[in-house]
Amino acid sequence: MSNGGSEVDYKHRVEVCFIPGQYPLYAPEMGIVVVIDVLRATSAMVAAFDSGVDRIIPVSTVEEASQYIGRPGYIAAAERNAEVVPGFSYGNSPLAYVGQDLRGKTIVMTTTNGTKAINLAHDAKQLVIGSFLNLTALCDWLIEQNENVLLLCSGWKDKFNLEDSVFAGAVLDRLLASGKFGVEEDSSIAAKYMYMSARDNYMGILKAAPRRRRIEQLKLNADVKFCLTPDQSTVIPVLRNGELVKMDTCSSTS
Amino acid sequence: MSNGGSEVDYKHRVEVCFIPGQYPLYAPEMGIVVVIDVLRATSAMVAAFDSGVDRIIPVSTVEEASQYIGRPGYIAAAERNAEVVPGFSYGNSPLAYVGQDLRGKTIVMTTTNGTKAINLAHDAKQLVIGSFLNLTALCDWLIEQNENVLLLCSGWKDKFNLEDSVFAGAVLDRLLASGKFGVEEDSSIAAKYMYMSARDNYMGILKAAPRRRRIEQLKLNADVKFCLTPDQSTVIPVLRNGELVKMDTCSSTS
Repeated sequence: MSNGGSEVDYKHRVEVCFIPGQYPLYAPEMGIVVVIDVLRATSAMVAAFDSGVDRIIPVSTVEEASQYIGRPGYIAAAERNAEVVPGFSYGNSPLAYVGQDLRGKTIVMTTTNGTKAINLAHDAKQLVIGSFLNLTALCDWLIEQNENVLLLCSGWKDKFNLEDSVFAGAVLDRLLASGKFGVEEDSSIAAKYMYMSARDNYMGILKAAPRRRRIEQLKLNADVKFCLTPDQSTVIPVLRNGELVKMDTCSSTS
Repeated sequence: MSNGGSEVDYKHRVEVCFIPGQYPLYAPEMGIVVVIDVLRATSAMVAAFDSGVDRIIPVSTVEEASQYIGRPGYIAAAERNAEVVPGFSYGNSPLAYVGQDLRGKTIVMTTTNGTKAINLAHDAKQLVIGSFLNLTALCDWLIEQNENVLLLCSGWKDKFNLEDSVFAGAVLDRLLASGKFGVEEDSSIAAKYMYMSARDNYMGILKAAPRRRRIEQLKLNADVKFCLTPDQSTVIPVLRNGELVKMDTCSSTS
């Protein structure tokens, strides 16, 4: 990385925003926003598209999602505090979608952090979904675009969270390695350091993490392992008119 | 560090808040708040007490500080955007205070980030000032108290900044090593990782940091080196009735 002095020798910026509340401070001049909620909303979204769903509608409230319970062609999914909301069959577990044939279905989803971040950044020029599941596909696509990239972490209840920031650092590291990107924000440098500390053992950094997360990890061990396993998918979900759909990467990069 | 499972085997929490805007989310249950603005407000405060000043009054606006220009016994200090505000002789440079005899003086100070964070947290049970200059004295004192500790980074214009977070990680690391503290927040773990990445070369992490900071570093090289040199002082500034004074650590810990 080389971005000092009077000469700027990169074309575009890649920056990390740690919490949704800071989005307005980081949004100016950004072309593509990548929304990140590793545990587990954005991982579940990628897994659902891999199982064939047509579209995912992110909604802010449980009430909105509940209107789709039992409606033909729809899957209503709602998570609060890492639990499936009573009355719903789906929460934010990606494993709930794996191995199912969901072709033609629409998911209406609300989660504690992830769908909130999507709705906050819905006016971005382009909004896509990132998770370890689609890490390489996402990075390759981002490098092909000629846009500034903002990596928007969903956090945990408006606070900083570790796994989203480590993932953001992983994306940043690849984009910097392409030579087309540079950073200006301290948060971006910090995310890179976090990724470098964690990259050899993603589970390890979570094991070192606070009690809430350790308990979550014990309870959701299979889910967490799945969410931290890179490159299980080449799908990039993209927001179009308020709905997430599978990006046609063949036509968009050629 | 061991803080998982059903048993909690530490007495107190030490947590890191990366930006002042998040203070209300981190403040509950905290006894001592350490305000951190490494470059350069809290470093300057420690240096000023070392040169004999009686008290420092942190104010929010340049206008308030300007009322003390030329008043006998007072030093008016104002910094905005890393520069001394026109009309003032002092900004936030610690070196401006070093080697001077300031006994009996009162400093009235306003800075871009640091004094803002102090005023935000003024209602804490106890508010003290942290910088690399008083690192060991501060940590030793914190370990002696029986309180939860919040390390409040001043950030840069409401955003995350690297040097405050690395310093917070340094304090956290020492408090955890005492065996009396544990953490619950992901931000605290992240600060520790940042400190571990930076500890062998504080200047190095700033050199890797974005352009704004690199330019600042070049321009303020002597100042920055001074601010990143640990343990030059045993002073712990503490807020009493809206004014910072030198803590009498002999009486407070015995």
